[in-house]
Amino acid sequence: MLGRSVIGVMGGADVPVEVLVLAEELGQRVANQGWILLNGGRDCGVMRASSKGAFEAGGLTVGILPGKTLEGVSPWVQVPVLTGMGDARNAINVLSSRVVVALQGGAGTLSEIALAVKSNVPVVLLAFDPGCFDNEKRAGRVRVVRTPEEAVDAIEGMLS
Amino acid sequence: MLGRSVIGVMGGADVPVEVLVLAEELGQRVANQGWILLNGGRDCGVMRASSKGAFEAGGLTVGILPGKTLEGVSPWVQVPVLTGMGDARNAINVLSSRVVVALQGGAGTLSEIALAVKSNVPVVLLAFDPGCFDNEKRAGRVRVVRTPEEAVDAIEGMLS
Amino acid sequence: MLGRSVIGVMGGADVPVEVLVLAEELGQRVANQGWILLNGGRDCGVMRASSKGAFEAGGLTVGILPGKTLEGVSPWVQVPVLTGMGDARNAINVLSSRVVVALQGGAGTLSEIALAVKSNVPVVLLAFDPGCFDNEKRAGRVRVVRTPEEAVDAIEGMLS
Amino acid sequence: MLGRSVIGVMGGADVPVEVLVLAEELGQRVANQGWILLNGGRDCGVMRASSKGAFEAGGLTVGILPGKTLEGVSPWVQVPVLTGMGDARNAINVLSSRVVVALQGGAGTLSEIALAVKSNVPVVLLAFDPGCFDNEKRAGRVRVVRTPEEAVDAIEGMLS
Repeated sequence: MLGRSVIGVMGGADVPVEVLVLAEELGQRVANQGWILLNGGRDCGVMRASSKGAFEAGGLTVGILPGKTLEGVSPWVQVPVLTGMGDARNAINVLSSRVVVALQGGAGTLSEIALAVKSNVPVVLLAFDPGCFDNEKRAGRVRVVRTPEEAVDAIEGMLS
Repeated sequence: MLGRSVIGVMGGADVPVEVLVLAEELGQRVANQGWILLNGGRDCGVMRASSKGAFEAGGLTVGILPGKTLEGVSPWVQVPVLTGMGDARNAINVLSSRVVVALQGGAGTLSEIALAVKSNVPVVLLAFDPGCFDNEKRAGRVRVVRTPEEAVDAIEGMLS
Repeated sequence: MLGRSVIGVMGGADVPVEVLVLAEELGQRVANQGWILLNGGRDCGVMRASSKGAFEAGGLTVGILPGKTLEGVSPWVQVPVLTGMGDARNAINVLSSRVVVALQGGAGTLSEIALAVKSNVPVVLLAFDPGCFDNEKRAGRVRVVRTPEEAVDAIEGMLS
Repeated sequence: MLGRSVIGVMGGADVPVEVLVLAEELGQRVANQGWILLNGGRDCGVMRASSKGAFEAGGLTVGILPGKTLEGVSPWVQVPVLTGMGDARNAINVLSSRVVVALQGGAGTLSEIALAVKSNVPVVLLAFDPGCFDNEKRAGRVRVVRTPEEAVDAIEGMLS
């Protein structure tokens, strides 16, 4: 029933190349686990890199877009969901994910981490720490990891 | 690139069995065309039947849910998108679809047809006519058909 | 407590002048009753005319806008709510209204009538009949009236 | 034209009494400036206290509610906007505000600060610092103040 878990991957539209490398490897590993990758769907930054990694590894990629047309959608997204809602779609990203992984990003990414915490969706911070979720870290609802491999381990723990 | 078209299938949660039969066959045919089936994701009525038809034919099924948990999601939905937005998600259903097919339904279905017309998404009415889109029928943006086979023909015309 | 009822007034952005006259008089009468007028907030058609009528009669006007800036907001709207959600905000218009009055309009207005019916918000059709709510008319949840004065009478009946 | 500015006041549903005192005084001062107070509309915490302060000072109070009924709405809210969208309404709170003031709160409040930063809406942090907006503080888009009086000064600067 609803066999494949949906894993949300969040992160900035404009990040250093080493973050893109992590995002792409994470996408690959998410796909290899048989999980569905969900992100914000745009053709830039962590969204593009994670979709590419998952797609090329044979995974299923879902993009929840802020706009109402296919313009600017990553070609690595197989299921584009057009919300026409701008940043309000961040709430959908989070509710639709069994676990949210956040890489380096700005205020949009931070809003998604906060919305996840608010909705009791567990969060993995991959090589990123915005520095404002200490209580949640102590409670284990937010975990900080250094590598995509560790992120997958953390997700597995949170799913079970 | 973004190879597979997304086809939205709308219709009532509580409809006669002959409508369910049409919905299931339509889902099957949508899958056989290689299109992605998108609907409201709930485990009842046209949503359940069309997802079942598409899933069993090996297709990809996406459900845009009104709620914020997996409760009540059809088991035939492979990609559940949890919006937590109630009927406001109807706008997402429509924006995300290249063509919307509507079967018999109530006010929710009617709102989706109207939102599709508003957003210039073409509509196929399958064995259903709510009786209030005469201008759009004349303009060809709304087409009435009798069978799932005719619906697929109409979708193909609208996609090209 | 929550003393003043919110009355939603829906209708087209581009309608004949006689519809604008009705909308302005309706706005005036809504204000005179002490009700809050809510509409889609844009500076055109029924939105502009009903806001103007209510504002000039000393009423309180609320606009639920599709965009995310104040551009295009009617100057007669005292409380602009910027949703950035396009037509998905139609669901908010309806949920926020104790009664929805619809004047002549297109697919957007029709979606609002349908969403109101779906959410059990009573509807008054003022000099307008899209021709697809026969069951609701019989059940009294949708009423057709000819003048703003009759609309106010119908609203009063529905509020009590 | 759209004469009165809308000021958003965000903060937790469950906060210490000294935060409630600040929220109520802030509401009062917002009203005294002639600004419209907008918040999340619920009858608890910073929402209730700021609405009460503004209402009793003769101000206009707008609540953007997560639910779809009037249950749980603060009696100090004059204009309840029912979104039925849960936390996605946080994006509306922020877009509708010329300036957002945040008092002590949890993940929901943090999501609103982040969404405000993302949308270039200036933020005043009143006796609260979640500790993750250092860049924005340096750029002056987020300002930390200690008293409601200072908050009003900061808002005035940001509006002009």
